[in-house]
Amino acid sequence: MTRVAYVNGRYSPHGSAQIHIEDRGFLFADGVYEVIAIRGGAFDDEDRHFARLNRSRNEIGLAAPMSDAALRAVIRETVRRNRVADGIVYLQITRGSAPRDFGFPKATPPSLVVIARAQAIASPRLVEHGVAVVTVPDLRWKRPDIKSVALLPNVLAKQKAKEAKAYEAWQIDSEGNVTEGTSSNAWLVTTANEVVTRQADHSILNGVTRLGLLDIIGSGDLRLVERPFSLAEARGAREAFLTSSTNGVLPVVRIDDAPVGTGRPGPVALALAAAYGKHMLGDGAE
Amino acid sequence: MTRVAYVNGRYSPHGSAQIHIEDRGFLFADGVYEVIAIRGGAFDDEDRHFARLNRSRNEIGLAAPMSDAALRAVIRETVRRNRVADGIVYLQITRGSAPRDFGFPKATPPSLVVIARAQAIASPRLVEHGVAVVTVPDLRWKRPDIKSVALLPNVLAKQKAKEAKAYEAWQIDSEGNVTEGTSSNAWLVTTANEVVTRQADHSILNGVTRLGLLDIIGSGDLRLVERPFSLAEARGAREAFLTSSTNGVLPVVRIDDAPVGTGRPGPVALALAAAYGKHMLGDGAE
Repeated sequence: MTRVAYVNGRYSPHGSAQIHIEDRGFLFADGVYEVIAIRGGAFDDEDRHFARLNRSRNEIGLAAPMSDAALRAVIRETVRRNRVADGIVYLQITRGSAPRDFGFPKATPPSLVVIARAQAIASPRLVEHGVAVVTVPDLRWKRPDIKSVALLPNVLAKQKAKEAKAYEAWQIDSEGNVTEGTSSNAWLVTTANEVVTRQADHSILNGVTRLGLLDIIGSGDLRLVERPFSLAEARGAREAFLTSSTNGVLPVVRIDDAPVGTGRPGPVALALAAAYGKHMLGDGAE
Repeated sequence: MTRVAYVNGRYSPHGSAQIHIEDRGFLFADGVYEVIAIRGGAFDDEDRHFARLNRSRNEIGLAAPMSDAALRAVIRETVRRNRVADGIVYLQITRGSAPRDFGFPKATPPSLVVIARAQAIASPRLVEHGVAVVTVPDLRWKRPDIKSVALLPNVLAKQKAKEAKAYEAWQIDSEGNVTEGTSSNAWLVTTANEVVTRQADHSILNGVTRLGLLDIIGSGDLRLVERPFSLAEARGAREAFLTSSTNGVLPVVRIDDAPVGTGRPGPVALALAAAYGKHMLGDGAE
């Protein structure tokens, strides 16, 4: 089957799907994006992804390329043409193509690119074994709450994880606190059995899976605290885990050179991973 | 005349010059760039631009798409095909096109895009009248010394300048000091007649025009100090100016709502603008 991508009004074979060299996404990282997981043909938490997309757009003064209803139709059609039952749909909106100049161009329509691909979502094997993370200084700009494509610091951090044979890099701010991973939120379970994750201010991206898990925890018996936590606290935690659209809830069993807790996925993380998966599958019918 | 751009080995009409949608420049801002001014057919300070390009590449672990000699030939050919005598050549190197994944792809060749266009360099009209700047918080990542395409904060800052009918935005760090403009370095002349510009550490891009001007000042009678300066000091300065490859030395006559000094281009800035232009024209023969 030939993969197909949507680019500015046209569905093209993936290999020849192109944008202009003066697209501001390419020249300036002047754009925003979303990645939505697809399970059994249904989109995970689509409304929250759209709410966040529109927030990101508004924060950088970027017009919508079309109505939400039309955009929802485009991502469905892209997924359909690629026959993706389990995988992701990626969408990127940029401030369009115009002669290179930092200020916003006038009367230039935004660009829209949509890619769909099959891939494992919330891999049971990863959940069962847990993953290692490394820590790196958080070098990002001061607004990572905006889901922009200015991702070079995230790329460099993830590469450090890769070179250390770890799965993710947790970024440490100037106060020694963990902000988040390069494409996931960071969580821990304290020895007092509280679930802790950083509050969603300007210093982290407010993950859609993070929000879904907050709902689940809020309706259960666990105590939840949204606050900063230090690397030292994470190292001494009973459990740790990360969340993202493609990973769901994923136990973290090692931070840099030291095991977290027992060095095996903990009971709270495993229970939340199961609860989140169940919630998504139950939720996904549309 | 049809404009022509170079993209990965091919010269194409500008309007149809494209890159793949999964180019990492577009998805991740995973690339670096340079803008070199051309005056009378000669490149300003080409060696320094190449030195900085290679430094930027190395800082992000990005391979060269070709030898420096070959790249110099490509930018010359692009300029020749576009018949640019006075203008700029823009070159961008990215980590190539590969299925979207934050870590570096294996065995993926870098992408190279080169654009040339005619435009005024060091506009005498601008120098004569001077320009206004606004100030904005410096929201950028912690490594603006790397000339990467992760320029969204610069875009947003320049847009604020544009909306205030100013020419540039000076960015203010968390200590209240001016770091630099969005695409230029910031300078002032104190009431003690010292020329001050921030030292080139990780907090600013070490401008090629900045370096050229340091040489000129060093060989003259002016006292030079490389150190941070605050917004308050800039507002109270005798003169202010900015430097960039396309602007040369450009007097700043207003910061936010207040004039700098007399509100007219100052004698030191005007003398340096003239000296720099002369230096470049004398230097440019090749």
